Amino acid sequence: MIDINKYDFEPIAKKYGTPLYLYDADRIRANIKRIKDAFEKYYPKTEMHYSVKANNNIHILKIFKEAGLGTDCSSPLEVKLSRIAGFDEKDILYTGNYESSEDIKAIFNNDICINLDDIESFRKMIKIGKPDRISFRINPGIGRGGHEGITTAGADAKFGVPYEKAYEAYKEAYDAGIRRFGIHMMTGSNNLEPYYFAEITDKLMNIAGRLFNQLGCAPEYVDIGGGYGVPYEDDEDPLNVDVTAKLISEALQEKCVKYNLPEPVLKLEPGRYFVADAGYLLTRVISVKKSYKTFAGVDAGMNTLIRPALYGAKHRSFVNGKEDNKEFVNVCGRICENSDIFGQNMFLPKLEAGDLIVMRDVGAYGYVMASSYNGRLKPAEVLIDANESRLIRRRETDEDFLTLLEE
Amino acid sequence: MIDINKYDFEPIAKKYGTPLYLYDADRIRANIKRIKDAFEKYYPKTEMHYSVKANNNIHILKIFKEAGLGTDCSSPLEVKLSRIAGFDEKDILYTGNYESSEDIKAIFNNDICINLDDIESFRKMIKIGKPDRISFRINPGIGRGGHEGITTAGADAKFGVPYEKAYEAYKEAYDAGIRRFGIHMMTGSNNLEPYYFAEITDKLMNIAGRLFNQLGCAPEYVDIGGGYGVPYEDDEDPLNVDVTAKLISEALQEKCVKYNLPEPVLKLEPGRYFVADAGYLLTRVISVKKSYKTFAGVDAGMNTLIRPALYGAKHRSFVNGKEDNKEFVNVCGRICENSDIFGQNMFLPKLEAGDLIVMRDVGAYGYVMASSYNGRLKPAEVLIDANESRLIRRRETDEDFLTLLEE
Repeated sequence: MIDINKYDFEPIAKKYGTPLYLYDADRIRANIKRIKDAFEKYYPKTEMHYSVKANNNIHILKIFKEAGLGTDCSSPLEVKLSRIAGFDEKDILYTGNYESSEDIKAIFNNDICINLDDIESFRKMIKIGKPDRISFRINPGIGRGGHEGITTAGADAKFGVPYEKAYEAYKEAYDAGIRRFGIHMMTGSNNLEPYYFAEITDKLMNIAGRLFNQLGCAPEYVDIGGGYGVPYEDDEDPLNVDVTAKLISEALQEKCVKYNLPEPVLKLEPGRYFVADAGYLLTRVISVKKSYKTFAGVDAGMNTLIRPALYGAKHRSFVNGKEDNKEFVNVCGRICENSDIFGQNMFLPKLEAGDLIVMRDVGAYGYVMASSYNGRLKPAEVLIDANESRLIRRRETDEDFLTLLEE
Repeated sequence: MIDINKYDFEPIAKKYGTPLYLYDADRIRANIKRIKDAFEKYYPKTEMHYSVKANNNIHILKIFKEAGLGTDCSSPLEVKLSRIAGFDEKDILYTGNYESSEDIKAIFNNDICINLDDIESFRKMIKIGKPDRISFRINPGIGRGGHEGITTAGADAKFGVPYEKAYEAYKEAYDAGIRRFGIHMMTGSNNLEPYYFAEITDKLMNIAGRLFNQLGCAPEYVDIGGGYGVPYEDDEDPLNVDVTAKLISEALQEKCVKYNLPEPVLKLEPGRYFVADAGYLLTRVISVKKSYKTFAGVDAGMNTLIRPALYGAKHRSFVNGKEDNKEFVNVCGRICENSDIFGQNMFLPKLEAGDLIVMRDVGAYGYVMASSYNGRLKPAEVLIDANESRLIRRRETDEDFLTLLEE
């Protein structure tokens, strides 16, 4: 596993060029083990599905396959990537929103657990084929995320069936002859508070308990989504997954007793938690400018990593092989707009051209959101496993860019 | 030219699929003519360079070539695209920031006007070759844009040489034997106030006057950048380009007299002004959901057009073939985060699945910032010219996406 206090990132940067996304397979495995152990301890009927949207490289997906997890997909292409990475249909969970008939046709398979976003999606599905099992995504009326954009439930959320209409949706499926059910919820991303997960589990189980009692059956699985956060700053504590698993399990079991339901399979869809801190963005300082402030221009930009510009995210960074003489500097890309700033007043060793900056916690929602803005093309991705590095996605070339243009 | 009150967008949507970027060649030509006429009237020595970063499709670039304009490029790939579209080197202007030696090598050409972002860039260039002519981008200490992220001068801006150091930069180039000069400034994007352009021209000419008087020579060209805005809302007035040209010209001429300089070539780099209102995003309603609010999910998303999520931009929209029974609706994409909202409380005719929504003013900073987030791939681009439509960039396919992944 990469120890950032000792690891020399320079050979990798020289070998593959910059900007470069670098992932640490062992860190991902450790993250998987931590959360898997916790849930196995408290609730052995837990099934974990890695949320592909966080990082969709098939070589990353293969790590999850080897660890015995499934995937959570949000588009037909993510299902295709899961299949390429070796997942069976029964490992795949699909959670979309505003599903089109084309999407449903592409993913329809009785082994894939599909969490439908709306009763409308069920009506579309039934025209395509009668599924063995149905699950709806429920908006429990509350939600919380690291920031507004990633809060995915509550009154302002576009996602799911409002819980007041949940019975109606399941009843329609029941009346259509469906007898196997799941129930799903995903309320927000990047939460670090165990109690939050207990609270939403409690809320969902109350909704599930009432509706399945009314329906006269029970859910095979309860999917409480993802949202397991990672600390992006030194003063944040990591999510205590042991406490989280314990609280979720207690809430689940208590409600099963209350509503006289058999204990369901518990499904989880973590994405960020598994991969965020396993990813590093390696970027080279092009030049340092003493303007009204000090700016260090690097070869990555908002095209490479949009989280700072889009969410105001901060990524802790360090300079490979340099530790002393720290000063405040604004690290920016070379895209022609001032949103293209990775950090204002970052406290870093005095920079000069050629220095290698390593940005942390970029394994989730990094490459997947990259663009070719300003004609600056997508970077490469490299995986380190057992101290060996290998290219897992090549750098985009001018030819790749040109191939979409008509003559 | 497309008249949105009459035009039926449905046949195009059916033929090419959705989501789709559609551009109107005649609208671009009209925008070019308006600004060209204004500057020819007041300052015939004006040379206009279309800012490729706004929309880099080579078929769009060809419209500018035919109209006699040049291009303004911010990366080697944009220079390559200009060449493919038929531009000669003398038509090409290059304005980067934090230029690497690789970039300078790629673009170095005595016919290309290069606005260097920093004295460091000049030092890199001189090692590669001695240019005939040098221009620096100056930060005049003030700036204004439609919003903070696109304000590209002032104390917080990463761009350019601070004006207090401008003489130093030119002196170093002069001492290296350079005798031909330009001077450049780009202070912010999307401005609608003519006086703003007069103010920055005045400011730049004072900087230029003093420094070239001190240096004992004169600039061949003065490049005041772009920043010519377009209205994104009904209650905004369009930029009065006639007044703008007049004021810029007056400021320029007055300062030439004051500093005893021959009248330079005036270079302009509009991007958004030419193409924004010539672009439409066609997107199909997948389904309408009555949750705590009413949501219409469409097949475009923040992956297709990130301006609403990134800048809080609003794009006026209408429904093809529907006008009555308006209600408030939240139009969203199907990306799995709540940032994926095109507009909250948009007042649109009552929507149903299959409706075609047309979003306006997306010709600039639309496609160029698209990503493949959530495995939702890049849309196609179509150009309408002389009532004929043709595909100018094909839709990204799964195969295109997979080609970058290593086995």
